[in-house]
Amino acid sequence: MNDVWDLVIIGAGPSALTAAVYAGREGLKTLVLEKQLIGGQVATIDRIDNYPGFADGVEGMTLAQDFESQARRFGAVIKFAEATGLARADDDIVVTTDSGQMVARAVLIATGSSYRHLNIPGEAEYYGRGVHYCATCDGALYRDKELVTVGGANSAVQEALFLTRFARHITMLVRSWIKADQILKDQLQQAINDGKITLMEGWRPIEIIGTNDQVIGVRITDDNNERRIDCDGIFVFAGSTPNTGFLQATSIELTETGLIKVDDNLMTTMAGVWAAGDVRSGAVKQIVSAAGDGAMAAIQIGKYLRGIK
Amino acid sequence: MNDVWDLVIIGAGPSALTAAVYAGREGLKTLVLEKQLIGGQVATIDRIDNYPGFADGVEGMTLAQDFESQARRFGAVIKFAEATGLARADDDIVVTTDSGQMVARAVLIATGSSYRHLNIPGEAEYYGRGVHYCATCDGALYRDKELVTVGGANSAVQEALFLTRFARHITMLVRSWIKADQILKDQLQQAINDGKITLMEGWRPIEIIGTNDQVIGVRITDDNNERRIDCDGIFVFAGSTPNTGFLQATSIELTETGLIKVDDNLMTTMAGVWAAGDVRSGAVKQIVSAAGDGAMAAIQIGKYLRGIK
Repeated sequence: MNDVWDLVIIGAGPSALTAAVYAGREGLKTLVLEKQLIGGQVATIDRIDNYPGFADGVEGMTLAQDFESQARRFGAVIKFAEATGLARADDDIVVTTDSGQMVARAVLIATGSSYRHLNIPGEAEYYGRGVHYCATCDGALYRDKELVTVGGANSAVQEALFLTRFARHITMLVRSWIKADQILKDQLQQAINDGKITLMEGWRPIEIIGTNDQVIGVRITDDNNERRIDCDGIFVFAGSTPNTGFLQATSIELTETGLIKVDDNLMTTMAGVWAAGDVRSGAVKQIVSAAGDGAMAAIQIGKYLRGIK
Repeated sequence: MNDVWDLVIIGAGPSALTAAVYAGREGLKTLVLEKQLIGGQVATIDRIDNYPGFADGVEGMTLAQDFESQARRFGAVIKFAEATGLARADDDIVVTTDSGQMVARAVLIATGSSYRHLNIPGEAEYYGRGVHYCATCDGALYRDKELVTVGGANSAVQEALFLTRFARHITMLVRSWIKADQILKDQLQQAINDGKITLMEGWRPIEIIGTNDQVIGVRITDDNNERRIDCDGIFVFAGSTPNTGFLQATSIELTETGLIKVDDNLMTTMAGVWAAGDVRSGAVKQIVSAAGDGAMAAIQIGKYLRGIK
């Protein structure tokens, strides 16, 4: 026999934990399922400057822990399990996980997104042995080392700038050109002037080269020429893809890029199932916006549950 | 000659100040116009429990000051002035205020909402002399006194519970019935059991009675009977109305209740003008959702300004 939860939230990032706070305050019996890391990507960010209310910035791990404590304070239960599917069963929704089935009256999908890979030779082979996706997590391994980064969006520039604290020098590969906020462009220019970063716009990696257990270089191309750069590690900042693979076999509609389609109230195309944060279409992928989504979804879920009772 | 601002933000609540943080980080020259109180309604709330990131809650005034410091840190200029209208002038937008005209390439309206009045005899006459709208602001004036509150929504229950810290006893008038989160209903029931609050569902005030300079009672009705309650003060928690009066003469479309109509990117029906937070249609009126709106609006405004340059 399974307990029936009022609300099962899949994921434990800012939108999930904000929804848990609101649901708890509404008296809903709430279960949060997380497969890996409470706080989601927030927990992997060194310093967050644009989350409102922290005038001088806040460490990602600290903010993630605050989100978690607040959700627990209002009664949320957090369980480590990976959702593998979901389906309606009469009035309820059954969430399948690697730790058994959970039954809920409503479900919120807040699984966020995951790092995008390059899918080039050597990438998988040297993952964690010179190939990385998170500067905050692994940057400190490369004190006084030579690094290569890939990507030119806001987050890529931010992460590369962070790596300058450790690395001797960074070569930044950008397939097209830098697409970042002016404030980040200014900081990047400063790092270039200081000789900490060499920017190579129009270049991309085609193979990661290693020997024994560690990366020693990367082959790159601008589509006319090829070169090899010696380096101790490569950080891939190529964005992220929504974590919606487990929804493939369901009736929940996704966009072409795998984001969950939602209505104005954040409900998906399956009745009783909502989506919030980076995993839903139309998200601007900011922590505070994800959290705002979580509040909205929980309020709508509360109305829905009161209505059908 | 006026300076041309990249962005003028009207209002200084959570959505306005979050937008100012994001706009500043984008390098936009940003002016924030506030007519009264930086932080908006947030600054008047005693304690905020559901803003994510503050596990044990935070004082409204503290949170408001954090929002403000963060906006200033990224370069926003804050000016006290009341907007009285706005109009397009070629590529720019002219904002009229009680301190002259401001010219901007884009405008964000984030004026929030104001306390709704009862519009009964005695209300205006005794405002501030027994008639109040904000427990946090004025509750402490009524230590060991007899109070009446009006309203039964979440905020009304929360405010009435707050007043129990000061008042000897509170009579809570609710026109229909209590419509609040279970957690608040539970706390209210506790206060009723403790004899701190008497709940009168189905009753509403029809006249506020005073003598000389101070409220002494209120006449109430359930539509069949009338009664008089002696009290030292009355707190009206009847919700709020959007601050959009200054838009009446513009082409910006409002809903029937005066909220600003916006598209999926929070742009209003006037090109170059956005709306965020409690003042826009579809808002759930939560601090974090308003802040999330501000981030989204600033990102969209940044794209818009880069596009037309």
